[in-house]
Amino acid sequence: MESKNKIEVCFSPIMYPYFANADAITVVIDILRASSAICTAFMNGADKIIPVGTLEEAFEMKEKGYMVAAERDGIVRDFADFGNSPYNFTPERVLHHDIVYSTTNGTQAIQLASESYQVLVGSFLNISALVEHLVKMDRDVLLFCAGWKNKFSLEDTLFAGALTEVLLKKENFYTICDSALASVDLWSLAKKDVIAYVDKVAQRERLRINKLDDVIGFCHTPDQTDIIPVLENEYLIKLNSSVK
Amino acid sequence: MESKNKIEVCFSPIMYPYFANADAITVVIDILRASSAICTAFMNGADKIIPVGTLEEAFEMKEKGYMVAAERDGIVRDFADFGNSPYNFTPERVLHHDIVYSTTNGTQAIQLASESYQVLVGSFLNISALVEHLVKMDRDVLLFCAGWKNKFSLEDTLFAGALTEVLLKKENFYTICDSALASVDLWSLAKKDVIAYVDKVAQRERLRINKLDDVIGFCHTPDQTDIIPVLENEYLIKLNSSVK
Repeated sequence: MESKNKIEVCFSPIMYPYFANADAITVVIDILRASSAICTAFMNGADKIIPVGTLEEAFEMKEKGYMVAAERDGIVRDFADFGNSPYNFTPERVLHHDIVYSTTNGTQAIQLASESYQVLVGSFLNISALVEHLVKMDRDVLLFCAGWKNKFSLEDTLFAGALTEVLLKKENFYTICDSALASVDLWSLAKKDVIAYVDKVAQRERLRINKLDDVIGFCHTPDQTDIIPVLENEYLIKLNSSVK
Repeated sequence: MESKNKIEVCFSPIMYPYFANADAITVVIDILRASSAICTAFMNGADKIIPVGTLEEAFEMKEKGYMVAAERDGIVRDFADFGNSPYNFTPERVLHHDIVYSTTNGTQAIQLASESYQVLVGSFLNISALVEHLVKMDRDVLLFCAGWKNKFSLEDTLFAGALTEVLLKKENFYTICDSALASVDLWSLAKKDVIAYVDKVAQRERLRINKLDDVIGFCHTPDQTDIIPVLENEYLIKLNSSVK
């Protein structure tokens, strides 16, 4: 069987227009911490997550009575119920709730990707479930790293590399994308001891300064859930949970 | 002595606004082939290179009597004297000449960077000369990869990694930039056999299709010259050759 589905990796929201592919499944990646937090919220029973790009929108939704998670540069905003740590999305808080969510990088990336065939949220927490779904769907895949303020983020790239490495072992995927090749090579260096490798990344240091780096191990622990968050209209739900 | 000069790596012209640093020396990198070709032109005796962004400007300069090198997607334009291969910039053609030069990625990057403290052109051909100059200048360094149509290019990144690796061994440089860290790691994988590694990059394949890949070895052979092209006003000259 000939390889046929293209894998590409986009390193930054500002590069997204050069990768946008309406026929592709786009996986949004923001390992520290939005995409890990979103997977955690669904693991813990949230019904919907409503990603909003701006703090103004988040504030308006709070006024309307929604539970709101909102941060900028890692810091919880005053009006919000909580911030961006996966540990905030506890069952006590999120079970059977809809949550409005606004972050520095991740939620904007989800909105940017909305014209794709399907938009998923990926993290180490659901990596094997993602692989299984992507193989079943048999389509082009765009791995979209949210990065940091339009710059490249190593931890998002490592995840893109981990996912690409597994997909390339399946017979229906190929890549000729330099970003994907680089991601796989970086993952090959990191995978023996991801936590040690991630110690050097810039976002690790930003979190450390704000004492928010307690999530590093959690965010890099694979296969904690089979749930895949998917964008439907303007909110995220669990894949296969919608009534169509 | 405390590390004090920051090294950053920008992977694409579209990301440049997030890295632009008026106090930094910006090194423009387009290994296959513009920055290698520009170094070759000066090696072979060119006086000036006038980088122009658009083919229209290149055509107008041809009408005014200039010798013009111009390509898009690797292919020489009809009106031009020659294209983008370093092998085109022979002593017979370039000695004591001014050359107008327009390429898909490299010349636009040079123009974008023009607000920097100093804009240099870097390639494996002049890597050790660059290192010596950057150490002497004792300033922030931005390594600006021209990429491919605003996408990431592995071969430019490898060069950025090679340069960063050497600079970080000097006592007056440091980095907290994920792109720089990734570049160094990718270079660590490639450096034992760069030509073999580069065989997989997308630009290698683009050149191969057009039978333009005869330059791979040449463009990855270090230290062929001590000349460093520098932007002065709107043209490139040899560093230290200007009358100020």
